[in-house]
Amino acid sequence: MANGGPEIEQLIQLMARLPGLGPRSARRAVLQLIKKKDQLMVPLSAALDRAVAAVKTCEVCGNIDTVSPCGICADPRRDNGMLIVVEDVADLWALERAGVGAVKYHVLGGVLWPLDGVGPDDLAIEGLLRRAPEFGEIVLAINATVEGQTTAHYVTDRLAGSGARVTRLAHGVPVGGELDYLDEGTLSQALKARTAI
Amino acid sequence: MANGGPEIEQLIQLMARLPGLGPRSARRAVLQLIKKKDQLMVPLSAALDRAVAAVKTCEVCGNIDTVSPCGICADPRRDNGMLIVVEDVADLWALERAGVGAVKYHVLGGVLWPLDGVGPDDLAIEGLLRRAPEFGEIVLAINATVEGQTTAHYVTDRLAGSGARVTRLAHGVPVGGELDYLDEGTLSQALKARTAI
Repeated sequence: MANGGPEIEQLIQLMARLPGLGPRSARRAVLQLIKKKDQLMVPLSAALDRAVAAVKTCEVCGNIDTVSPCGICADPRRDNGMLIVVEDVADLWALERAGVGAVKYHVLGGVLWPLDGVGPDDLAIEGLLRRAPEFGEIVLAINATVEGQTTAHYVTDRLAGSGARVTRLAHGVPVGGELDYLDEGTLSQALKARTAI
Repeated sequence: MANGGPEIEQLIQLMARLPGLGPRSARRAVLQLIKKKDQLMVPLSAALDRAVAAVKTCEVCGNIDTVSPCGICADPRRDNGMLIVVEDVADLWALERAGVGAVKYHVLGGVLWPLDGVGPDDLAIEGLLRRAPEFGEIVLAINATVEGQTTAHYVTDRLAGSGARVTRLAHGVPVGGELDYLDEGTLSQALKARTAI
């Protein structure tokens, strides 16, 4: 099957590795790119080039941005009242879309998952322990999955000596659900009704 | 909402314009790209650059390839026994995946759609009339939608004087369905059972 030559075939194979696109939808997406070459393909190619050059991981919180410290860590309107701990950058972005206020974040980079060999050293827990004493309250906004809750317990234990008040999101989060799929209203409510652990 | 800086935001907006990806799945796709920067983002960026530079529309049949005439038109194993007329490059690729044999194609580039102002001059019908006398048989593999069938009737009328035998795909194609979504077996069967118009 050599439709379209190796350049197009390779592009389809790479697009098919994106979440949400399978082999068939990747082919449709690439055809759309080619048909709208000047309006879509050329700008997307340029935007990817720029993003490849610019993207950085924030050395303070683990957010993804084009500067480090990231725009959130460097934002003078945010104080050290509340540090929200999330699994993933997608969760941080979801909370920001929900407009939860002038908070700061800490991205763990995953959850504890012993079967896959993910232990405490694979998560940004040491960085969290270093930052914790600067904050009035630490909110664990970790997904309500089994592994997420295990991780939350572990992090709470580690934070016990820091003197910081540790809370978690209210049980507005559906059990088994993931933060990034929730609507903004539910996320806001869950933060307002947070409870002490 | 300035998560991730303008470069990342622009990339998300462009990705959201691809078929199959909405704003939320585009954000997930971009996060995945950034997390797998070396394995996915950099190769995708390079593949897009190469495709932008290489992609051409075949001047003979309207297929998309990196050479013109395209690989199918230039393929010495294909004779002029059968010319398959399709709406779209996606349909041509679907027929090639079905392995329909040593045929050639002609891409109309759409269907007649008077309400949207798509008339005969907007489709590659003149080119088809020029090519028709070279072929033993012309198979109209146009989608089984109302507009597709109207277009097939119009094309059949225009081909009447060419002396070519005009057929259409058998009614294995589900009414209202689109070629690109069919399984290869159905497509092969529909071609084998094609009927004279």
